Amino acid sequence: MFSAGSLYRSLGLFGALFAQSAGVAAAPVSIIFVIGDGMGPSYTTAYRYFADDPATADIETSVFDELLVGMARTYPGDSTLVTDSAAAATALSTGVKTRNGAIGVDEHHKPVQTLLEAAKARGYQTAMVATSPITHATPGSFAAHVGHRSENNEIADQYFDQRIDGRFKLDLLLGGGRQYFERKDRNLVKEFRKHGYAFAGDWQQRHKLKRLPALGLFAPEGMPSALDSEQPLRLQQMTEQALDLLGKKPFFLLVEASQIDWCGHANDIACAMAEMRDMDGALRVLKAYVDKHPDTLMVVTADHGTGGLSIGANGVYDWDVASIRGIKATANRIADQLLAADENWQEIWLQLTGMNLSEAEQRSLQRWIPHSRLSGEDAPQQHNPAAVKGALVAQVLTLINKRTHTGWTTSGHTGEDVQVFAYGKGHEHFAGNLNNTDIAKHLFRVFAK
Amino acid sequence: MFSAGSLYRSLGLFGALFAQSAGVAAAPVSIIFVIGDGMGPSYTTAYRYFADDPATADIETSVFDELLVGMARTYPGDSTLVTDSAAAATALSTGVKTRNGAIGVDEHHKPVQTLLEAAKARGYQTAMVATSPITHATPGSFAAHVGHRSENNEIADQYFDQRIDGRFKLDLLLGGGRQYFERKDRNLVKEFRKHGYAFAGDWQQRHKLKRLPALGLFAPEGMPSALDSEQPLRLQQMTEQALDLLGKKPFFLLVEASQIDWCGHANDIACAMAEMRDMDGALRVLKAYVDKHPDTLMVVTADHGTGGLSIGANGVYDWDVASIRGIKATANRIADQLLAADENWQEIWLQLTGMNLSEAEQRSLQRWIPHSRLSGEDAPQQHNPAAVKGALVAQVLTLINKRTHTGWTTSGHTGEDVQVFAYGKGHEHFAGNLNNTDIAKHLFRVFAK
Repeated sequence: MFSAGSLYRSLGLFGALFAQSAGVAAAPVSIIFVIGDGMGPSYTTAYRYFADDPATADIETSVFDELLVGMARTYPGDSTLVTDSAAAATALSTGVKTRNGAIGVDEHHKPVQTLLEAAKARGYQTAMVATSPITHATPGSFAAHVGHRSENNEIADQYFDQRIDGRFKLDLLLGGGRQYFERKDRNLVKEFRKHGYAFAGDWQQRHKLKRLPALGLFAPEGMPSALDSEQPLRLQQMTEQALDLLGKKPFFLLVEASQIDWCGHANDIACAMAEMRDMDGALRVLKAYVDKHPDTLMVVTADHGTGGLSIGANGVYDWDVASIRGIKATANRIADQLLAADENWQEIWLQLTGMNLSEAEQRSLQRWIPHSRLSGEDAPQQHNPAAVKGALVAQVLTLINKRTHTGWTTSGHTGEDVQVFAYGKGHEHFAGNLNNTDIAKHLFRVFAK
Repeated sequence: MFSAGSLYRSLGLFGALFAQSAGVAAAPVSIIFVIGDGMGPSYTTAYRYFADDPATADIETSVFDELLVGMARTYPGDSTLVTDSAAAATALSTGVKTRNGAIGVDEHHKPVQTLLEAAKARGYQTAMVATSPITHATPGSFAAHVGHRSENNEIADQYFDQRIDGRFKLDLLLGGGRQYFERKDRNLVKEFRKHGYAFAGDWQQRHKLKRLPALGLFAPEGMPSALDSEQPLRLQQMTEQALDLLGKKPFFLLVEASQIDWCGHANDIACAMAEMRDMDGALRVLKAYVDKHPDTLMVVTADHGTGGLSIGANGVYDWDVASIRGIKATANRIADQLLAADENWQEIWLQLTGMNLSEAEQRSLQRWIPHSRLSGEDAPQQHNPAAVKGALVAQVLTLINKRTHTGWTTSGHTGEDVQVFAYGKGHEHFAGNLNNTDIAKHLFRVFAK
């Protein structure tokens, strides 16, 4: 979409500007930028109650509560007022508002320098960690420049092809999306390895990443949902590994809790709380790092809210968090298990959700479960397994949301301001109500010092 | 419910404590406490976009954006996690969590001293302004102690009967709720007047309130909705009047934007935005006052969110704020006007909403409008005017919410954290994430200085 030449010129100009200002003074400050994708304010409140220790009378505060400093306005550069992750991440990575879908480019498709690129131009180590494909909209917007977020292959290519002052843009990538690197038309993994990158192609191999540069692609697409995963704290673990590999030299580290958003799109509250728990774990690791390395600045925010989540719904003044804690799988996985079941489906339901069902509720599920459907019972869309699965997932979620008094308004995003959390050196600059672009603008100033 | 004697003893004890501490030092600080009832974070975001000047390219910030310092946790003293206005206002007025429904009493029904009472005990002037009945849950919790918010008569009685060190608790009351003061069993207006209170029983007479103490009861129940009112900025005007009457002596002033919550319960976005505009007006007046009187501390917050409002809904990444600006009446009033119409109902609809309707949308309204219903058409619940009105209101809201991409999850309250805004002397004490009780606790410390 953009010629490498014009991009380099554009980035080169910014690079020169920063190099110039960099001549002036000051110890370099490592920057940790954490994004909870889709994490509107309701999510952190919900998570506080989800994470509360029921054995104590107090409701314990969360790491989010400890770090809150302000809120940010998320509207995109078009007229919709509701942003997608691409426009929001571009605002957070470049300080420029753009249209929905755009990755690291402005409204006129012009590439804009990102914080990560400015950090690399200043000689920082650079790293990105995500549970989505590492080419997804949010990480993509920190290290690529394409017209639309769907261009995953082009984004992966740019991670290799675009250089800053002759150097690779990224020293470390950890996340999903292996299929965008190992393709029929190009094998970027081989190319990275040829240039000295250590590589791990699955979770078991990740101990092989012992030095930078390194590339860890732990799943073909996104990593498994935290709630369904054998590594429910995989974001925390990748974050620990990133900090170990980055060591003590100044760095820019992006950490995205990618799948809060996906659970929000699915309107699956137990799924969302498991992702929040993993993000909580990552934040605790990062906070401890900042405590030991006071020349570090950590900023945490969301790109937008997802799903229109509310604590309480349908006129009920309650939220049954104990029931949510009892749910052991995503609705997607619950549906798979129920579809594979025979007469024992009710046992499986109980085991995965902890919820006793009324007879009417049982019937609302049973009609979608082939082996247990009553003979002669209405069996809609019998010959379309995908539609049956979809209907069963929807029914599982309807039961969970009704039982727990959890509300949702949309399968998409919402426009309310998001919270801003900050910690470490200069955290006070992020207080009050900011535009999301102000966050990037201030961080550019940190590099320019 | 509580004997006056035990209450006085309880308050007397606190009063003595404060008097003792008050002996120590420091200039008294006037306190302005503003509550946007039901104003969850989505409301202030929505209002920014609603109030934006479409003639400029920028999206202007609001007075809320200028004042934001943090957020507060709203869960009540029972196990529900979703508070009502009584428990929330008691937390904000006393620093004590209590069960839903309770007014100025703890979980064991014991009266707890309020900020307003502590202010009076310290010799401050005291005033309350609201667009609801002035005996409603929020103002009630600042100056009364009853087991349940429904006890409006008892709350009004306590405003007169309970004294602090022999003095009336309240120097100024402005709002609705005249019916709770002028009753068959007791005429509190007469009693107040006998004790020197100036009185205004409707909006036109309010100029008669030229000195304290004063009582302005401008409606039998709540005041008309801002959107339907000839005084759409009645909260701003009452706030101006309160500041004029309070003059320069130290005061505690409670201002409640009561009806944001009512519009939220109705899921009526245009109604809510008109209430927000009135609150915005009141805040600007108060902010200007603080600028001129730096020995003043203003704290603004919400008691809880209402309605599960989201900006964007049903999978659409947009919010049509221009259409919301075109709506000239609440859904309740639109329904009344449509019911009173004949063939011209479509003109009336267009005039009140600015929205052109598709044929299917027209039919969805027409079937509820008696004079314009097509002959032979299905006319449900024809003999139950209240049910017809209810169904028409619901249909009007369905159209408005669908057209504008506004989401709602409940007719009740929601549990997300609310924003905290502060300005003036000591505003920095309200930064970060607080418990709602911490707000009161800090303000008690201001009196104790």
